[in-house]
Amino acid sequence: MRAKVTVLGLGPMGAALASAFLAAGHPTTVWNRTPGRAGALIDRGAREESSAAAAVTAGPLVVICLVSYDAVEEVLAPLSAQLRGRTIVNLTSGSPVQAREAAALAQRCGADYLDGVIMTTPPGIGRPESLLLHGGAPEVFAAHRDTLAALGDPVHVGADPALSSVYDTALLSQMWGTLTGWLHAVALIGSDGPGGGVTAREYTGIADRWMGSVSAFMNAYAPHVDSGRYPGGDFTLDLHLRTMEVLSHASELRGVASGLPQVFEELTRRAVDAGHGDDSYARLVEFMRVGGHV
Amino acid sequence: MRAKVTVLGLGPMGAALASAFLAAGHPTTVWNRTPGRAGALIDRGAREESSAAAAVTAGPLVVICLVSYDAVEEVLAPLSAQLRGRTIVNLTSGSPVQAREAAALAQRCGADYLDGVIMTTPPGIGRPESLLLHGGAPEVFAAHRDTLAALGDPVHVGADPALSSVYDTALLSQMWGTLTGWLHAVALIGSDGPGGGVTAREYTGIADRWMGSVSAFMNAYAPHVDSGRYPGGDFTLDLHLRTMEVLSHASELRGVASGLPQVFEELTRRAVDAGHGDDSYARLVEFMRVGGHV
Repeated sequence: MRAKVTVLGLGPMGAALASAFLAAGHPTTVWNRTPGRAGALIDRGAREESSAAAAVTAGPLVVICLVSYDAVEEVLAPLSAQLRGRTIVNLTSGSPVQAREAAALAQRCGADYLDGVIMTTPPGIGRPESLLLHGGAPEVFAAHRDTLAALGDPVHVGADPALSSVYDTALLSQMWGTLTGWLHAVALIGSDGPGGGVTAREYTGIADRWMGSVSAFMNAYAPHVDSGRYPGGDFTLDLHLRTMEVLSHASELRGVASGLPQVFEELTRRAVDAGHGDDSYARLVEFMRVGGHV
Repeated sequence: MRAKVTVLGLGPMGAALASAFLAAGHPTTVWNRTPGRAGALIDRGAREESSAAAAVTAGPLVVICLVSYDAVEEVLAPLSAQLRGRTIVNLTSGSPVQAREAAALAQRCGADYLDGVIMTTPPGIGRPESLLLHGGAPEVFAAHRDTLAALGDPVHVGADPALSSVYDTALLSQMWGTLTGWLHAVALIGSDGPGGGVTAREYTGIADRWMGSVSAFMNAYAPHVDSGRYPGGDFTLDLHLRTMEVLSHASELRGVASGLPQVFEELTRRAVDAGHGDDSYARLVEFMRVGGHV
């Protein structure tokens, strides 16, 4: 028999979580501050409790998805007797500091704690490729990994419960970099002019293949960042800067706003001007740290 | 027997091209304006000619990798008799307009023409994953595809020879967006603070998996751009904007320069202010087109 699971919070995300647990065969108990949200879940076998205190005693694992960490504290603080010996997986959105505070609250209750972030929207819950990132004690993660796999692809990012929130912000930053770069590319290649008028769909087919190379660059550059040594090889900042000037010129010619390329070019120019023209692109990380360089 | 190939230009890239043709068993003739560069290639079976006129008559396919399109014109213009009936594949870096001019020159010589860009550096030549993008008549590409596959993964991007250069610029724009977003993420997650101190290598292992989701977003958004309809579903610009504010705040707290997030946030805020808060991220493309929106 699958492990029993409690889900606190039945907003769109909480309801998706409960639904995925039910789909994977976990006996699922649900609670929501405002009752009456559980209808479709009850039809599929969920048990609704009218108090959080009753809900958390249904099984060993309590998955929380509330509107804020304040709400989490408000719900959990009175339940220390009921939470003792259980594991809390808190998927509520919040900051690294809030994650640590919630972990401390769990500890005071005698409960194990995993923080978590969900890198998808409610319809993505339950798909095996949807990332869920968890920070907390590795043995706690290991004990519940199979249950959490009902929700997507659970990844342990480290023992510090603050880590999942920091990963969330970092990964979103990278997502926006990619999507904004992609939209700039699409605007450029879709505009009028020689070799223009390409549809976004056509371009994206090629861009997909290119992203494999870009991932290879990331992996090659990661050790540069960690070691503080940035060998440029045959793709130096000098070369990047020259091709960035081509991009700026093309953007201007084709009527595409150059806010994004200006950020790359300005960072690259600062690094080149500081004498790093032979280095790899990874050198720019030092120019992103405030006060690291001026 | 493999098709005979001529390579004009033996800079680092030209030499890598000739080397890859030799490795794939193509009888390869080479020429360089300054003689004496072909030593290692001759040892491996290449034939060097002292004039471009002699070199281009060695076989049906002439691959050109010179320092500029001006150099291409200078070398080819006197050779119209020798070029008749052959195919030129021009891998020299240049603009869309220059690609069209070179195609016109080839036509005056009675030669077929493919433009091309190489999306790797010399050491990547010959690897099956290295993208080479070609613009020109599809039947000319089809006739030489197998020969070009000695260099990497040849992709036909359309009949217009200007296309390969525009793709090059667009793909680089997207690469810089991704790499700069990645470096911002790495700076953030590597900095001091709760959940910080993560190495670039550790982060990048997770980021690699995340990029699969980001590619899925790109593919989902491409039809939005093509249709001019941007249904936000459950990941609206309002939601993006709220999480961008978290990123800006985290960047400030952790001493990471916010030049890049400011570009996303400003674009997103403009779109939200213009009443598009329920739309998908793809709506931003309209705010990148100069004059499209103010």
